[in-house]
Amino acid sequence: MSEKNTGRVTIPTNLDVVPETIELMKRWGADAIRDCDGTEFPEELTKTGAKIYATYYTTRKDNEWAKANPDEVQQCYIMSGFYTAVESELQIPLMKGISDELMQVNTRDDIKRWWEVVDRSTGQVVSTKQWEYNEESGCVCIHEAEPFHEYTVSFLAYIIWDPVHMYNAVTNDWKDFEHQITFDVRQPKTHKYSMERLRKFCEEHPYVNVIRYTTFFHQFTLMFDELKREKYVDWYGYSASVSPYILEQFEKEMGYKFRPEYIIDQGYYNNQYRVPGKEYKDFQAFQRREVAKLAKEMVDITHECGKEAMMFLGDHWIGTEPFMEEFATIGLDAVVGSVGNGSTLRLISDIEGVKYTEGRFLPYFFPDTFHEGGDPVKEAKENWVTARRAILRKPIDRIGYGGYLKLALDFPEFLDYVESVCNEFRELYENAKGTTPYCVKKVAVLNSWGKIRSWGCHMVHHALYQKQNYSYAGIIEALSGAPFDVKFISFDDILKDKDILKDIDVIINVGDGDTAHTGGAVWENAVISTAIREFVYRGGGFIGVGEPAGHQYQGHYLQLADLIGVEKETGFTLNYDKYNWEEHKNHFILADTTKPVDFGEGKKNMFAYEGTEILVQRDKEVQMAVHEFGEGRSVYISGLPYSFENSRILYRSILWSTHGESLLHQWFSTNFNVEVHAYVKNGKFCVVNNTYEPQNTVIYRGDGSSFALKMEANEIKWYAV
Amino acid sequence: MSEKNTGRVTIPTNLDVVPETIELMKRWGADAIRDCDGTEFPEELTKTGAKIYATYYTTRKDNEWAKANPDEVQQCYIMSGFYTAVESELQIPLMKGISDELMQVNTRDDIKRWWEVVDRSTGQVVSTKQWEYNEESGCVCIHEAEPFHEYTVSFLAYIIWDPVHMYNAVTNDWKDFEHQITFDVRQPKTHKYSMERLRKFCEEHPYVNVIRYTTFFHQFTLMFDELKREKYVDWYGYSASVSPYILEQFEKEMGYKFRPEYIIDQGYYNNQYRVPGKEYKDFQAFQRREVAKLAKEMVDITHECGKEAMMFLGDHWIGTEPFMEEFATIGLDAVVGSVGNGSTLRLISDIEGVKYTEGRFLPYFFPDTFHEGGDPVKEAKENWVTARRAILRKPIDRIGYGGYLKLALDFPEFLDYVESVCNEFRELYENAKGTTPYCVKKVAVLNSWGKIRSWGCHMVHHALYQKQNYSYAGIIEALSGAPFDVKFISFDDILKDKDILKDIDVIINVGDGDTAHTGGAVWENAVISTAIREFVYRGGGFIGVGEPAGHQYQGHYLQLADLIGVEKETGFTLNYDKYNWEEHKNHFILADTTKPVDFGEGKKNMFAYEGTEILVQRDKEVQMAVHEFGEGRSVYISGLPYSFENSRILYRSILWSTHGESLLHQWFSTNFNVEVHAYVKNGKFCVVNNTYEPQNTVIYRGDGSSFALKMEANEIKWYAV
Repeated sequence: MSEKNTGRVTIPTNLDVVPETIELMKRWGADAIRDCDGTEFPEELTKTGAKIYATYYTTRKDNEWAKANPDEVQQCYIMSGFYTAVESELQIPLMKGISDELMQVNTRDDIKRWWEVVDRSTGQVVSTKQWEYNEESGCVCIHEAEPFHEYTVSFLAYIIWDPVHMYNAVTNDWKDFEHQITFDVRQPKTHKYSMERLRKFCEEHPYVNVIRYTTFFHQFTLMFDELKREKYVDWYGYSASVSPYILEQFEKEMGYKFRPEYIIDQGYYNNQYRVPGKEYKDFQAFQRREVAKLAKEMVDITHECGKEAMMFLGDHWIGTEPFMEEFATIGLDAVVGSVGNGSTLRLISDIEGVKYTEGRFLPYFFPDTFHEGGDPVKEAKENWVTARRAILRKPIDRIGYGGYLKLALDFPEFLDYVESVCNEFRELYENAKGTTPYCVKKVAVLNSWGKIRSWGCHMVHHALYQKQNYSYAGIIEALSGAPFDVKFISFDDILKDKDILKDIDVIINVGDGDTAHTGGAVWENAVISTAIREFVYRGGGFIGVGEPAGHQYQGHYLQLADLIGVEKETGFTLNYDKYNWEEHKNHFILADTTKPVDFGEGKKNMFAYEGTEILVQRDKEVQMAVHEFGEGRSVYISGLPYSFENSRILYRSILWSTHGESLLHQWFSTNFNVEVHAYVKNGKFCVVNNTYEPQNTVIYRGDGSSFALKMEANEIKWYAV
Repeated sequence: MSEKNTGRVTIPTNLDVVPETIELMKRWGADAIRDCDGTEFPEELTKTGAKIYATYYTTRKDNEWAKANPDEVQQCYIMSGFYTAVESELQIPLMKGISDELMQVNTRDDIKRWWEVVDRSTGQVVSTKQWEYNEESGCVCIHEAEPFHEYTVSFLAYIIWDPVHMYNAVTNDWKDFEHQITFDVRQPKTHKYSMERLRKFCEEHPYVNVIRYTTFFHQFTLMFDELKREKYVDWYGYSASVSPYILEQFEKEMGYKFRPEYIIDQGYYNNQYRVPGKEYKDFQAFQRREVAKLAKEMVDITHECGKEAMMFLGDHWIGTEPFMEEFATIGLDAVVGSVGNGSTLRLISDIEGVKYTEGRFLPYFFPDTFHEGGDPVKEAKENWVTARRAILRKPIDRIGYGGYLKLALDFPEFLDYVESVCNEFRELYENAKGTTPYCVKKVAVLNSWGKIRSWGCHMVHHALYQKQNYSYAGIIEALSGAPFDVKFISFDDILKDKDILKDIDVIINVGDGDTAHTGGAVWENAVISTAIREFVYRGGGFIGVGEPAGHQYQGHYLQLADLIGVEKETGFTLNYDKYNWEEHKNHFILADTTKPVDFGEGKKNMFAYEGTEILVQRDKEVQMAVHEFGEGRSVYISGLPYSFENSRILYRSILWSTHGESLLHQWFSTNFNVEVHAYVKNGKFCVVNNTYEPQNTVIYRGDGSSFALKMEANEIKWYAV
């Protein structure tokens, strides 16, 4: 077995498949073995020489402790439903719509200090003298309520069943087991105990090389209803990272009083779409500092015990999101995450400050795929080919699979396919390593979150589809595998130093108006609009997707309407006649399209100013247009779901907006189903067929020379430059 | 000729068709003759015994005066385009995009007092020290501009070509004529002169019985661009009703300083969609008081001269919109207006405080219809049948036609058809007169304008189609011919006295969020939301169309989301799982539908709360849903363009929302192409076929008894109760 055919692969295992594991490790070239939640580790495998990963739960799987210390069980802020008073007294049932197996109202802490009753018809806080909580009925009773005003109660609840544990149990219909309670490592008793518990675990598992933290301390927001159906999910949500203990520290450090509303946010819980306010950003920053400190303690213990520390990307990862400033200070050796598409791949591979990253590929070896009639090869191919685009831009260092290996053994074609993937991965890793692939332009995605939500800015829950965002997430997905140097910047970054724009070729602003994706009221700050206008006027590119800079203010809905050349008809401009409807279909940007452009959900009511060149309008609603502004150029697109064809449209948009048309025929495939990536420093370039059919194309090298090529389905070919 | 076959009809005429006019007067039973703009009146016709109308222009057709008094030419406020400073000096060309044949910059009045330069990046007014106007270049030059801020100039311009005159001239390609200048009757010299001019006109036209004012003093906002294309039109626009003379009076009366921005409104000119601010409402009220006073002077003179005063609904009608408070004080005898559909008919027929109303029917006898191959009968039928629904609810007192009679003479079938219309009109007028037709419910359309924009609330320019509003205007059109007592109320009405809701069965709120149609920020005033909630909770009905009560505030986009049971997904609630998608197609409201409901533009991103009954969702976007709230009921509809089938849907929605299902089979046609109107006091009811094909139906009388009926195309049948 050559060096090339070994390493960089992690395999799951189980007690009942030890010989098969050893056989497959050889075939796949696996050099690490992971245990699986709910399984025990087979001892023979400790002697294979492979690294052994052990999943470690910092905040659960120790109900004895949790039950003995109910005051240090994790808490979360919840807003009740909206209730309308119809007389002067109003009862609000706190737990309506929430599983009582998941949460328990916290009456241990001072409810008058930590809860908040809000009159949502006025936004005013109701005096604590006007309400009390009745534990028996589970209701807050408001007195002297204003009839026909709407009220909500913000309250603290204990997380008495770990939401991920609950999800696994409900999904897999587990029977006869104890609900794992989530305890809060940040609190003093549990803090001390947890460090001892970790040392003990390390000592008791000498054969383990890597502690795989799943994850650290605070679960992203995840709630279930009375029917145990998912009620609310925010992969980036902070509402389950609170407790009076933590909030008092926050108050002390920030010097102002905490209000539940900073977390509750009218019931929107500061989700991905909400333009974050000062207090929420303060809270996030506080949490990541504190969490990083505490996680470092655990990582240091791990290292003291001679083991590596690996973090799982997800679950209890609040405060340790890897693009946050303090992340590197934790000292982790590795991050592992699940790969759903190109964006989730980059979410892992772009992490800095760790020694290596690892992607868990789909499908997991679970019965939902590995059953008679299942087609795991198809799923594996789709997952691999989708992720490969992104790996070729920025490779992860390792790949792996998860689940019950036994299930996979019944699918020999699948085992073969994974073998080929492992080999292909090692080859490309070798060819791409240590260098940055050729980037034609520097692209900055601008939103309210910036770097901390790099690649994840349109994710509600990992790579899950949402009708309202696939047309925007498509831009990020296209970028994840495209030859650009991609940055994620925030409006705060520009406020801090507008010169950051000097290192950028094109700004992309993508999303709906009045959301964090496009900025909302931040456009009332002239520093922002001025900086962007100047950037474009001096020759920069701007690509606006959806309702870029969308916020009603001073005569515009799109605050950069004059720069973009497109405005939204909100009714306020219906009185103005619009004469510019001619389409310019022969534009550079549309040159490779084979069919009417798929804008996904598209946008209604967009119109173009005079002087703007419309590329596509449908039923007098502009879907795509270009406009020159000073020396710069703007491209408007109403939406762009991910597809190979749309990825080409974005590619050409970026080139056009940056006056880069002449760079088109460099490291380029005429057929957009095929992509080219060049690793000039390594003297290599590759051509990949992203489809499941053979493709013919013409490939252009960096010097503009070209050759015709036929590619097999899914094929990757490597060449010397 | 029987009495029944004479009267209530006005015929246009001309010098070259006098004998034909007399002949047609007999056939049509016309008892009034009108002259036609640009034609002279034939003297023989003064002896027919018919009333004679003479069109009178108060503000134009006297260039001698206008030229002698350039300081009293009418003015209007205009906002320049948005211009971005790229250095510290910025030139803004004021007349870019505006025809210089139409407008002339007013430098006669103090520009530093009456103009305003605004930094639109901050909303701040630029100091008058920082700019000056260069008459030669036509530019305002701003000094010490902030680079990359956007600026606009609000300035006054003289209306040197009457916009309606210009429109007629351009449309009809007139040659060799003088542009008529609009002078301002409100100003002192012109005021005095105009009253003398009117007296003179009356004296010189002794044969004239009716002075048809076209109209009074201020043209609705109407601008043309350099290519003489329409640039901006607002049938209700006030921006051309200003002058320093008037504004100084306004300041004196209101006690606060006038700002150009009160009219300019960020370039939106307080159009129909804008939630009007206090100052604009003050200005409207001031104008209508002043205009009414001045119009009364003219009407008094008219009466003194032994003539009637009739007002044309449109053109220079600003300040005399007939649903305004002061209108009746003018003392007009009549109003005449053009009938485009049912809504425009009610706009005329619902006017109070005049002796009679008259509708001008289409087509006008102009060459665009009356040419070889033209089909004026088809146009006339469509116009008549569309308007007839509304006439049957609230008749106008007279009908008439306009244009060049000579052109119509070549279309004998048309002359026959008009004869039948005249007879049909007289019959229905006779049957319906002096009584209110049976109304099954009291309906209030609630918006920011209320009564003053009754029936016209969704009109940008008369009955013209707009993609963005036909789905909403359809509601008003359906109501115009439906058996309801319809009121238009404003949020201010509710603030003044919420008890006005006690006299209402159902409230309709129709339009897009954050517009005057739905109220915008008014929903932050709890008095409003409380009043509506209480109204519905106590048993009232609510019908929300589009984005009813749409305004982002305190956790809702639809401020009545809990009452309506429907909310808009703005991204802020994407984290909440939505399980309610089941359709309930067998609902009472949908019982007569023959095909999938046509919601027009519909709405994206609407979802229903638990407990709401969805009637229609498409691709997981709710288009129609019902919800109970206390004793009351709400119906949500995403849009409802006018059609016979949709009119039935609205009818059933109103019944259902008011618990009126049992009233369905009263004065009712099972076939929705046919309608029934009952005039119980007069002992009559009629059945009308609104289509151009025969229809079979079953008719229910008021007592629930029924009979089958076959109707000919367009037929109306009258019965005794």
